[in-house]
Amino acid sequence: MKAEYINPFIAAIVDVFAKMLGCSLKRGDPYLKDRAQPTYEISGIIGLSGKAIGTVVLSLEREVALQATSTLLNVRYKTIDADVIDSIGELTNMIAGSAKAQLEQFEMNMSLPNVISGKNHVIQFPSDATSICIPFDSPWGAVCLEVSLVEKHAAKGFPAKTGTPAASPLSNPQEVLA
Amino acid sequence: MKAEYINPFIAAIVDVFAKMLGCSLKRGDPYLKDRAQPTYEISGIIGLSGKAIGTVVLSLEREVALQATSTLLNVRYKTIDADVIDSIGELTNMIAGSAKAQLEQFEMNMSLPNVISGKNHVIQFPSDATSICIPFDSPWGAVCLEVSLVEKHAAKGFPAKTGTPAASPLSNPQEVLA
Repeated sequence: MKAEYINPFIAAIVDVFAKMLGCSLKRGDPYLKDRAQPTYEISGIIGLSGKAIGTVVLSLEREVALQATSTLLNVRYKTIDADVIDSIGELTNMIAGSAKAQLEQFEMNMSLPNVISGKNHVIQFPSDATSICIPFDSPWGAVCLEVSLVEKHAAKGFPAKTGTPAASPLSNPQEVLA
Repeated sequence: MKAEYINPFIAAIVDVFAKMLGCSLKRGDPYLKDRAQPTYEISGIIGLSGKAIGTVVLSLEREVALQATSTLLNVRYKTIDADVIDSIGELTNMIAGSAKAQLEQFEMNMSLPNVISGKNHVIQFPSDATSICIPFDSPWGAVCLEVSLVEKHAAKGFPAKTGTPAASPLSNPQEVLA
């Protein structure tokens, strides 16, 4: 996964949180995801497909999801309800849409956003697709953006057990920020 | 969501389970999903996009996931490990790919499959997108295929709170089998 593929997603989340939520994100160091690592309690997920295929996951601590929805809808939310789910889906949609526009060479379309909730749910990627987590701190709590993007000629989905990896792992996740 | 959109997914899962796993599925009555209803313990998810956009979720009881992987890889699996995750992702990919081929008028591409694990995880769809669950019994346990597909001119993703629904709900889920 090349640096120029991940930077548009970083720019997109920072921009969407700033403009839509008035919320400043402080980026931590990106890392390659351990496959079985749990996400936060609420995760928006959306698929991308075209000349590259991939997934964007926006994972939020509960309080971030509640505060973000409260800000968007100008009503105080204290429980995860349908409005919160819709809001997190829409934020995921906006972030993926903004990044996609910057990756126009892949002519990608977005699927429907879904929102996954549940303590300790784990979202796993195909073992041959590098997935990068970019952690952020916000005044409301922790946020993680997880992105996997594979150019189509290299994409095989989940591999047969005897298959060879289709995507080369990023040897140094820091290079995405070069 | 029209009947002709859902039938290819039913045909696809029955065919993939029969041909790849030698496993006969017995279909139950499809129903509109209550948004907050938990899925089974392991769910494969894949996005579709083109002239229609949507999501396919293959949700399996733990034992179904283990037995399916054991059959595919000819080794007995007793715990959910990376091979099981990859196998469920690949089954999801095959089912969506087979259905997509029958819905060629939408010129859809598939995103990367992801696999979600965790007891009581909930996968929610945008409130303006009808999602249909099709339950199946198998000799190994329960299986559910969940599909949402929205023609693109009607798709808005998660709605703003003041928005009007983009997709008309299916008044009678049974009509998908007409």
